[in-house]
Amino acid sequence: MDKKVVGLLGGGQLGRMFVEAANRLNIQVNILDAAKSPAKQISSHEGHFEGSFKDPEAIEKLSKTCDVVTVEIEHVDTQILEKISSQVAVEPSWKTIRMIQDKYAQKEHLQEYNVATAQSIPLAGATTEDLEKVGEQIGFPFMLKSRTEAYDGRGNFPVKSSADFDAALKALGSRPLYAEKWANFKAELAVMVVKTKDGVLAYPTVETVHEDSICKLVYAPARNVSKKVLEQAQELAKKAVACFWGKGVFGVEMFLLDDDSLLINEIAPRPHNSGHYTIEACPISQYDAHLRSILDIPIQQSELRIREPSIMLNILGASTPESAVQIAERSIAAGVGASIHLYGKGDSRANRKMGHMTLTAPTMREAEKAMQPLLDITDDVRGRKSKPLSDSKPAGQAKDAVVGVIMGSHSDMPVLQAGINILKTLNIPFETHITSAHRTPDWMSEYIHGAMPRGIQVLIAAAGGAAHLPGMAASHTAIPVIGVPVKPTIGDGTDSVLSILNMPRGVPVATVGVNNSTNAALLAARIVGLKEGQIQKALIEYADKSTAEVMEREAAMNEQGWDAVFEQWHGAAKK
Amino acid sequence: MDKKVVGLLGGGQLGRMFVEAANRLNIQVNILDAAKSPAKQISSHEGHFEGSFKDPEAIEKLSKTCDVVTVEIEHVDTQILEKISSQVAVEPSWKTIRMIQDKYAQKEHLQEYNVATAQSIPLAGATTEDLEKVGEQIGFPFMLKSRTEAYDGRGNFPVKSSADFDAALKALGSRPLYAEKWANFKAELAVMVVKTKDGVLAYPTVETVHEDSICKLVYAPARNVSKKVLEQAQELAKKAVACFWGKGVFGVEMFLLDDDSLLINEIAPRPHNSGHYTIEACPISQYDAHLRSILDIPIQQSELRIREPSIMLNILGASTPESAVQIAERSIAAGVGASIHLYGKGDSRANRKMGHMTLTAPTMREAEKAMQPLLDITDDVRGRKSKPLSDSKPAGQAKDAVVGVIMGSHSDMPVLQAGINILKTLNIPFETHITSAHRTPDWMSEYIHGAMPRGIQVLIAAAGGAAHLPGMAASHTAIPVIGVPVKPTIGDGTDSVLSILNMPRGVPVATVGVNNSTNAALLAARIVGLKEGQIQKALIEYADKSTAEVMEREAAMNEQGWDAVFEQWHGAAKK
Repeated sequence: MDKKVVGLLGGGQLGRMFVEAANRLNIQVNILDAAKSPAKQISSHEGHFEGSFKDPEAIEKLSKTCDVVTVEIEHVDTQILEKISSQVAVEPSWKTIRMIQDKYAQKEHLQEYNVATAQSIPLAGATTEDLEKVGEQIGFPFMLKSRTEAYDGRGNFPVKSSADFDAALKALGSRPLYAEKWANFKAELAVMVVKTKDGVLAYPTVETVHEDSICKLVYAPARNVSKKVLEQAQELAKKAVACFWGKGVFGVEMFLLDDDSLLINEIAPRPHNSGHYTIEACPISQYDAHLRSILDIPIQQSELRIREPSIMLNILGASTPESAVQIAERSIAAGVGASIHLYGKGDSRANRKMGHMTLTAPTMREAEKAMQPLLDITDDVRGRKSKPLSDSKPAGQAKDAVVGVIMGSHSDMPVLQAGINILKTLNIPFETHITSAHRTPDWMSEYIHGAMPRGIQVLIAAAGGAAHLPGMAASHTAIPVIGVPVKPTIGDGTDSVLSILNMPRGVPVATVGVNNSTNAALLAARIVGLKEGQIQKALIEYADKSTAEVMEREAAMNEQGWDAVFEQWHGAAKK
Repeated sequence: MDKKVVGLLGGGQLGRMFVEAANRLNIQVNILDAAKSPAKQISSHEGHFEGSFKDPEAIEKLSKTCDVVTVEIEHVDTQILEKISSQVAVEPSWKTIRMIQDKYAQKEHLQEYNVATAQSIPLAGATTEDLEKVGEQIGFPFMLKSRTEAYDGRGNFPVKSSADFDAALKALGSRPLYAEKWANFKAELAVMVVKTKDGVLAYPTVETVHEDSICKLVYAPARNVSKKVLEQAQELAKKAVACFWGKGVFGVEMFLLDDDSLLINEIAPRPHNSGHYTIEACPISQYDAHLRSILDIPIQQSELRIREPSIMLNILGASTPESAVQIAERSIAAGVGASIHLYGKGDSRANRKMGHMTLTAPTMREAEKAMQPLLDITDDVRGRKSKPLSDSKPAGQAKDAVVGVIMGSHSDMPVLQAGINILKTLNIPFETHITSAHRTPDWMSEYIHGAMPRGIQVLIAAAGGAAHLPGMAASHTAIPVIGVPVKPTIGDGTDSVLSILNMPRGVPVATVGVNNSTNAALLAARIVGLKEGQIQKALIEYADKSTAEVMEREAAMNEQGWDAVFEQWHGAAKK
């Protein structure tokens, strides 16, 4: 393993983080790029080459010194890669790099393999007539794109109507072009895929947030997306990468449309900005994975798990040379435990990727809270208006709900009110739903099945009489269900208690007293509190307050005597 | 921040990992050590110095090129550090390094500040008469130690009786010596302390396991130690470091004695083997912390938390030059997600620290399970017999219990038996205790209070009649309590149900049906399963099995008809 030498075209930040991974395994990387490029700064040996990573002669020289040649950028000369591939391994294959370089060819290839992508039309010429035809075919707006040398939004032009034709052709007219059907996406997702000699593996699905077409934030895993969609995105990404050649990691960017369907946006045949989070969040980073896959060092799907939810924020330069370091220094001072990476790229320039920060936390909510000041600092230094990281929550239907409160009928609401207040007091995100076991059995089953994958940790179910909802809920899930027996109009509620309590062996329901939604909520808080320290702390404070209240009464009784306090607390008449 | 230059004495593995942290913040480190030393391999610039880190002239030259001089090893020339400290910051202070170099002076200093350490006696001469006197003073066995240049057990000699005097003097007689009272410790603990310009911060308390006096394993946090002891160890370590001078991280090694008291063993004024785990397990590693503290870059206590329980295993060389790489390769192939660090120290030598591996997992139990094959591989390559990582558990009293099963009387055991079987089937570690609310109220209270800090996540409490145990348990803790109403000799158990179910608002108990310990255990599993994926999976399998069982009966009824299956299942007589 440590006797192998890797040749790397490009010594930018992706190369630097790749070299960091190689350093840990003591594997030599010979870099072709300018002297003192970011990757070279952290690798001291005599095997580097100085020059452009596009220079065929230099590439050929480099190839003679290593066991495998790889890239940190796809804009390389694939003719020379094809040539050297008879002498040395090139990973991923020059065929993959060549096809991915041409975005239209990339899309055409994916469509041949039945991988969902946006409809794309090549443009032979680049006249207003051509664009007119495209508009007729795929409708307005559409995206005019350069087939080659496009990244971070450069090379894309949105065409809203024929009024944009001239500006679009002025911006991109000199380049080989194609047009892409407009994707009305509700979110952008990405998956890092690892292609090894044995097959494809996938990191979890993440959510990317772009600003001015540049990646700004990455949430791992993606928020507010069902488990099903997360898995579908991984499968689509694996399917897409499987139809290319060679080994290495691939960044797969996707659109999530309104109907929860997915389209591939584009693929990068190398480590990717959307995978930086893996350095801190996963046992094996995307750079480790790239190194392992191109050298046939084993790697397992289970090693690609996320330790804790995480958020990555790019440090993009502003107009002053010191701006990136300013962002880093102020972010460190915020003291929220972010890992800071500065790439050693010299002076900051506007929108240049100068570094990034990754933050992990036990829950995404905590990660968002911790990341907020860093986003504010970044936007402040860059002279932009900052936005809150987490979306505002619809009242009573928290997007990040961990407790689901369900009832068989709206008539159960007054009984649940006290419990809802406790959840609010303890700051526990919850959602409420009416799911009758008898009148909406299918909706009930659908809701319960969806609850666990969406992150619900506890269900509180209220029901009265032949109170089936708590037990049926428990039958459809593996998370704990708390049953609140509701006192019906007739009787004392014993029927409700027994219907909930006497579940058969095998399907447990945690039953509380009749109408006691307070205790149901406090029990839910104890359960959720096992994972979230803040909630456990709030619970202990709640109990301390309750102790203090009783001790105050006790003190008053001691000071004032039975008669005085009786009158105060129970009225003179009742003496 | 990125304009500061750090001078580093020593370029070994600690220096290498320190430079990795500095690289991430793009801070230049000028290293004084031999060419191609491990740290220099990952730092390419013109500011390094070639030579011995003990060479006064070279140190003086280095000091002129940087803003702060620090060390990766304490065996340096403090005379020259004292001299240069008028021109450049030296962190930690030369005074600290000088005092720590002399282990006896270190201990004397700690005792002056009332920091608990083993009783130590300086030896003016080194004759059998001197040792005789020591034996009389502190008893046998005692530890004869070199005051200086001692590490990894070299410089220590255990003296069991006067029969060992000659051998001890032969081994160490030429060095300045002291004798230390023998510490009968049950565990070795360690804490990394960060000394900043503002005070001292501490990483969590870890457990270190030595073999042949060399650190082999580090468990973070320490296992089988109460929360109180974990905190006391952090406090003792902070107190110890606070009485030294300057800034930086310090490794503090301690003995945990049988009575749970703590003694400082020794202190290292630099990053330490026991803190390697922080690279993967904590937001800020010990190397980040060292860099930040010596450069006055802010750092917060909350940034020193552990993301997931973790285990570090040293890769110690064997007799063959390739042995460390062999261990690394085979450990990667095991596919358990360990992060591998190889130090670039060239050929392996027996017992030389060539690298390390760190593994994190959602629970310590899972980390132990994942680490076991790596320990086996390491011991195999090194020709040693491997041992199981986790201690064997006393039946029914798991050391890592997450469920506490308590009962008011041994007569409740038959009712609990079914639940205990479920816990065993689902592989959930549990403990069982008899804690009567009425007959042992103090023991009950003591047990319940201790449960949460020791890691118990759920209590199952069984009681009958005036069934107070579940409710009283809930009153003493913030973790969920599940109550199992036990049917008493007289009556149908309604008394037990109502005593458990009708708790006042504020103190919830999750009640299950009479005698239904099965459902109590399954409910506990659902709760614990929220944190532990393995348990949730086992639960789902359990439910699937139960579904399959009913479906088999249904199929049999369809195939054989009512009469045939009635006879099979209920006997001919009952038809």
